[in-house]
Amino acid sequence: MNVPHRDLPRIVIIGCGFAGLKFAKTINTNQYQVVLFDKNNYHTFQPLMYQVASAGLEPDSIVYPIRKVFNRKKNFHFRMADVHQIDAEKKLVHTSVGILDYDYLVMATGAQSNFFGMKNIEKYSMPMKSLVEALNLRSLILQNFEKALNCSNVQERDALMSFVIVGGGATGVELAGALAELKRYILPKDYPDLDIRRMQIHVVQGADRLLPSMSKKASADAEAFLRKMGVNIWLDIRAKDYDGTTVYTNQETFKAKTLIWTAGVKGAPTAGLKANKTNSDRVLVNTLNQINGYKEIFAIGDVAAMPSEELPYGHPMLASVAVQQGVHLAKNFNRLAKEKEMLPFVYRDKGTMATIGRNLAVVDTKRLKFGGWFAWLLWMFVHLMLLVDFRSRLVVFVNWAWSYCFYDKGTRLIVREVKDKTLPNCVELEEGSSTK
Amino acid sequence: MNVPHRDLPRIVIIGCGFAGLKFAKTINTNQYQVVLFDKNNYHTFQPLMYQVASAGLEPDSIVYPIRKVFNRKKNFHFRMADVHQIDAEKKLVHTSVGILDYDYLVMATGAQSNFFGMKNIEKYSMPMKSLVEALNLRSLILQNFEKALNCSNVQERDALMSFVIVGGGATGVELAGALAELKRYILPKDYPDLDIRRMQIHVVQGADRLLPSMSKKASADAEAFLRKMGVNIWLDIRAKDYDGTTVYTNQETFKAKTLIWTAGVKGAPTAGLKANKTNSDRVLVNTLNQINGYKEIFAIGDVAAMPSEELPYGHPMLASVAVQQGVHLAKNFNRLAKEKEMLPFVYRDKGTMATIGRNLAVVDTKRLKFGGWFAWLLWMFVHLMLLVDFRSRLVVFVNWAWSYCFYDKGTRLIVREVKDKTLPNCVELEEGSSTK
Repeated sequence: MNVPHRDLPRIVIIGCGFAGLKFAKTINTNQYQVVLFDKNNYHTFQPLMYQVASAGLEPDSIVYPIRKVFNRKKNFHFRMADVHQIDAEKKLVHTSVGILDYDYLVMATGAQSNFFGMKNIEKYSMPMKSLVEALNLRSLILQNFEKALNCSNVQERDALMSFVIVGGGATGVELAGALAELKRYILPKDYPDLDIRRMQIHVVQGADRLLPSMSKKASADAEAFLRKMGVNIWLDIRAKDYDGTTVYTNQETFKAKTLIWTAGVKGAPTAGLKANKTNSDRVLVNTLNQINGYKEIFAIGDVAAMPSEELPYGHPMLASVAVQQGVHLAKNFNRLAKEKEMLPFVYRDKGTMATIGRNLAVVDTKRLKFGGWFAWLLWMFVHLMLLVDFRSRLVVFVNWAWSYCFYDKGTRLIVREVKDKTLPNCVELEEGSSTK
Repeated sequence: MNVPHRDLPRIVIIGCGFAGLKFAKTINTNQYQVVLFDKNNYHTFQPLMYQVASAGLEPDSIVYPIRKVFNRKKNFHFRMADVHQIDAEKKLVHTSVGILDYDYLVMATGAQSNFFGMKNIEKYSMPMKSLVEALNLRSLILQNFEKALNCSNVQERDALMSFVIVGGGATGVELAGALAELKRYILPKDYPDLDIRRMQIHVVQGADRLLPSMSKKASADAEAFLRKMGVNIWLDIRAKDYDGTTVYTNQETFKAKTLIWTAGVKGAPTAGLKANKTNSDRVLVNTLNQINGYKEIFAIGDVAAMPSEELPYGHPMLASVAVQQGVHLAKNFNRLAKEKEMLPFVYRDKGTMATIGRNLAVVDTKRLKFGGWFAWLLWMFVHLMLLVDFRSRLVVFVNWAWSYCFYDKGTRLIVREVKDKTLPNCVELEEGSSTK
């Protein structure tokens, strides 16, 4: 692989999510040569991905070209590539663009959807863990309404206009809220020939409350907000199977052409690296984020589980954990270069938040738990500030202000055709239904 | 097809480019029921498409959801569909969503790339006539630089970094300018490991000057601007063949992995309608835009050719012609409803313009022909004002202002992978090129 020779120790990072990005930003490249691999040429700001899926934002607002972040960093090399295999013995990484040796390896490969072995759900449902999946979901939602227009079978039409979101965590709740806003403000105007009141949004949650990782107040608020917006909430039930039209659970069944899966995540694959993992495929690490059994291989972010007495399964899979671990490990490497000892990682919980819709969000901090208009303002402010650059902030702000003032969303475009994974189209080639 | 029964005469429009959009906006739906078909759910503002291809703008800035335009228009129905067949005898349109009868039919299907029968060029080149093609082109350009990074063969690497634009009309010139700006301001920062000076941009033009439909002053200015920006201009030569790596012309050959085809357009297919056409597949119409031989079928925009003494091949294929024909025909229908006579179409030439880059554009009007900074400001102003709504204008303005101030482009994202149409990747899986 064409990476310059070097005198400095080489750190290879796999993955440019929050953990990898922050690590790469913080590491001192006067002391190390750094090579970053990612299969995309951009970093994705995952917390706003549901707005891409629900036609509120375009990709450029929430993803950021990796090369642009680092174009002034010396001894830093980005390669867009898939990592196929890690050879820990020879300290080599095999990738789609060649083989590279490392002195230190940092796994920041993140998480992927966990279908818990349910093959049909994996086959027919729409996940939303990547930008491309979010764009596919957007196209599918809009395509279904276009199809519904031409469908004279009422059951089929209702199924095209029904959406089952499995999973009541932040992603599920935020997406349900966004769909409810589409239903209330946008779709009746766009599809005057359809009876949009028949559109159904279901959230199917296995636990006994929404947002189970937040406070009970937040759960109750979120549930009340969503119910008010017309979302059907099903607690304590579990999806079992899906054939592309019918969602089977341990209780109800739902007819819906779209099942959105946000119910489970697991650690991403680790390219053949032998390591002890949790039940949800996260690699076990010690308090230095070192993978058990390897001295020079580390894991940070969602893919890593650092069990402790309070957290026997490791930290929650949150952006804030990933960010803090990325920064912390990089600082540890910077210490190492000065021959100082590495320090154990300690997570600082700055609170969590989720937005449900217009003027509605919930916020938990250590001291305060609140919901409503002020929480929503705070949510918007925090997310705008977390975006990588001023241009994105301005574009997102314009889009949000526009939606807010005009009850409108800018980008309901079907840019990529999503094939129906099950059936031929619900379209009858019939003549004369409209003769004079 | 589920379109309501009606008492009014039904006009079916095929295509929502400039001509179809303006027609649909102008037609009086108190007098007619109108059904619009388009294969996409959005209208594309084609003049700025090259900025999507060159990573300057995102799709939402230049395309606009059709349903949003018309969501307050009664007796108006949009259907996203492909039109397969027109049965002029029975007055039926066969589409992918069913069959519909019409009283009047308006063909506004636009134009498509014309490869003049050169199969290999059609197979291996990148056209840029649709939003999806523009997005593919953007991804390909960026992917080629990612590949070049991992390519140790100099000839291969140079070919990956070489771009041949065939066609020196407005699209070719504007795209060449945008690529030259990428080369100067963006790529050297993004790819410090590549020698971007080796990147080549060629414009291959069959005529003896660029922008042959504009004034000689405009041609000379555009040529001077592009040469100053480092673009190689080849006049009076014609591309003959392309194998994915080598461009053959009647003189030079060029090694380039990317050939962008902007050299020819022809009328889009007319779904089996029997009509007399020009050499470039445009349907011949009379001065009322009526297709010769049919009383109730009309054609407007690029697909229509209205020959006259001054213009034996019809009007140029320009947005302004399409807009004027759309408005004019709709007004004619509105007259017809009042039992007034239809009036012949007269084109008002408001001038033409093309932009080359930062501070550089050329403008031709009847009285004035000028180029440079003021032309560029005028170009920006006119194009901002032509965008459909205020949100798009604001977003485009933010993006342009940002690029101008920071010599930066926002959206260099590889969102869709474009497969190399010819060869396996130029990537060697070699070990040890980077051992300590």
